[in-house]
Amino acid sequence: MQKYGGSSVATPDKIKAVARRIVAAKEQGYKVVAVVSALGDTTDELIKLARQITDRPPRREMDMLLSTGEQVSISLLAMAVDSLGEPVISLTGAQCGIITDAQHTKARILEIQANRIQEELGKGKIVVVAGFQGITSLNDITTLGRGGSDTTAVALAAVLEAEVCEIYTDVDGVYTADPRVVPEARKLEQISYGEMLEMARLGAGVMQPRAVEIGAQYGIPIHVRASFKDEPGTMIKGEEALEKEVVVTGVTHDTNVAKFVVVDVPDRPGVAAKIFSALADDGVNVDMIVQTNKRTGRTDMLFTVSKDDMESTKDIIEELCKELGGERVIVNTDVAKVSIVGAGMVSNPGVAARMFRALADENINIQVISTSEIKVSCLIDASLVVPAVQAIHKAFELHVG
Amino acid sequence: MQKYGGSSVATPDKIKAVARRIVAAKEQGYKVVAVVSALGDTTDELIKLARQITDRPPRREMDMLLSTGEQVSISLLAMAVDSLGEPVISLTGAQCGIITDAQHTKARILEIQANRIQEELGKGKIVVVAGFQGITSLNDITTLGRGGSDTTAVALAAVLEAEVCEIYTDVDGVYTADPRVVPEARKLEQISYGEMLEMARLGAGVMQPRAVEIGAQYGIPIHVRASFKDEPGTMIKGEEALEKEVVVTGVTHDTNVAKFVVVDVPDRPGVAAKIFSALADDGVNVDMIVQTNKRTGRTDMLFTVSKDDMESTKDIIEELCKELGGERVIVNTDVAKVSIVGAGMVSNPGVAARMFRALADENINIQVISTSEIKVSCLIDASLVVPAVQAIHKAFELHVG
Repeated sequence: MQKYGGSSVATPDKIKAVARRIVAAKEQGYKVVAVVSALGDTTDELIKLARQITDRPPRREMDMLLSTGEQVSISLLAMAVDSLGEPVISLTGAQCGIITDAQHTKARILEIQANRIQEELGKGKIVVVAGFQGITSLNDITTLGRGGSDTTAVALAAVLEAEVCEIYTDVDGVYTADPRVVPEARKLEQISYGEMLEMARLGAGVMQPRAVEIGAQYGIPIHVRASFKDEPGTMIKGEEALEKEVVVTGVTHDTNVAKFVVVDVPDRPGVAAKIFSALADDGVNVDMIVQTNKRTGRTDMLFTVSKDDMESTKDIIEELCKELGGERVIVNTDVAKVSIVGAGMVSNPGVAARMFRALADENINIQVISTSEIKVSCLIDASLVVPAVQAIHKAFELHVG
Repeated sequence: MQKYGGSSVATPDKIKAVARRIVAAKEQGYKVVAVVSALGDTTDELIKLARQITDRPPRREMDMLLSTGEQVSISLLAMAVDSLGEPVISLTGAQCGIITDAQHTKARILEIQANRIQEELGKGKIVVVAGFQGITSLNDITTLGRGGSDTTAVALAAVLEAEVCEIYTDVDGVYTADPRVVPEARKLEQISYGEMLEMARLGAGVMQPRAVEIGAQYGIPIHVRASFKDEPGTMIKGEEALEKEVVVTGVTHDTNVAKFVVVDVPDRPGVAAKIFSALADDGVNVDMIVQTNKRTGRTDMLFTVSKDDMESTKDIIEELCKELGGERVIVNTDVAKVSIVGAGMVSNPGVAARMFRALADENINIQVISTSEIKVSCLIDASLVVPAVQAIHKAFELHVG
């Protein structure tokens, strides 16, 4: 099982190079299933096209539109493999039997009916699969959201009981921090599913969180590596399989964050439930949540969402704010989240404090704090993200292995 | 039933204009099904993309690639209709139940399982359908060949028992000759299926021949008209419904012709059968066929095909020529076909002669002649096509109604 991201197939020459890599794997005796994303910036261009028609495209039609991107990639990659003389067939998400729910633009895989893939593999063919897409039980095309091709690859690897799921990308592995921000950041040889999950959720763009989740659930080792290099990247696997455990594995940052404050809503039971279930019904993932009690019978409700969900969140929240008798809604997009991740954090109580100290020493104000067993996240001003990540990376001495 | 060609949806503004036209039809009380082609030059650009990967893309993968063009159109058009506040849904060929044979890149519709369309129309929705595409019984995506969207529209009109099938295009009807070649060419108010069929086959690019065939078979009136004008175009209908019959209805020309000569094959039974069944098996439509007997026990076999089929025809014929002991194969693409079409021709024996005379007066040499009950075609040098069409149009006084 191999997966190639959009940058790996951005040009005809790159497509041919990927075809050679796939054929090489076949020649080593593997049955190869290759999952591909849309070429280069295709998805963004399709979104731009839709915006020229309307500001509010129906989600079902967005999926109809966006799914063409991968369909172009698979056909071209199959042509390239064919021209190398290997039998090959391309399959859309629907043809692969990737059945999802009907939550358009961010559907979840319910089931994979892999008989067609099995059949084609049985005929000795290389199978090229469109990532990112599926089909509902009513035969409507869906997409799995940003990075959904990773999910396709890992889910297929699980169903097909693949030995490993290789994620080929434009970076050569998972780093202790974004190397563009922290030049001395170090490539990790291995990382646990849990840590990778947190890092992915917290903005390390290497892997889609849901893909890591599925990998963990089915115990599929995921190898994140560079498309056009031969050296190994980072292996994501179960904790029991890791050779050692460190306190803090890496620092991540995420600027794709919008902060909402619902000001002065009545402080009574059910308010939070009402807000967050309305968002959940619309498929919005809420990240950090903080409620500040004012002793006035009123409260400010603060939370963050991805900028992708900002518009729909705004619509929902402004209506709810009126309904609940809140004062107003403040939206702020000049924020960023910096986080530390590490499985060893639970047993080391001083870790969070060390992070806060590092930020304080740089005079960086923390707006919101959120913690889990293996991560600590701080919301800060977006303009301060680079010094923040650098300071934290240094404080935990992540440049030394 | 409405069908919009690629030029009608080439830009976001044109897509919005088409959406308004569709919504207007709905407001007049019609149930509207709109079939759309790929935006502008998309199909040509996708073909170019494939050529950058390989000279010989597998046909199945070409269909996988090309079918994305219409999928983009339907989603954008559905978004535009939605933004006008009308309920709408886009459907791919597969979702419309357009079942075809497996002759990729030129598949034929076997059956339409229209329950999904019926259902959506029943819900009061405008249905936007991807033209040009279908799906095999094994769930592989197919395309119907150039102009296949017309076929989709007329076939759907037949299944849904539509009142009329409107073909919106960038010309405002069917003319007595190509107005770019003959400025005094006249727009026909009406034309019979048979005449339109011949004109379409002979290069009048307005309608896809197979679409006309289906229209004739099911008696669906086809209205060819301009996308962005309100006046009526040309109505294609049964001969019994026409008000009058003229001897010659129009002149057509076609430069998308390749001439093959298989030189000096043994003149014995079965040779022609062998050649033309090999081409048929590959899905190549052979047009004119002439065999010239040389009294040497050998013969030259001459035939024409569309330039689109030139490469595959060449492969097949060169191999067969060796096998049959022929001397060599000559391919010539500098040829054009000019034709006259008219249902009244059968009972007017002097018509062909008048055409040949018009060409002779212009000093134009005729390479091959082919006739049917309602047409006469001549193969001539491609460089002479404009004076040829003008001379014929004049000879039959087609500029006067």
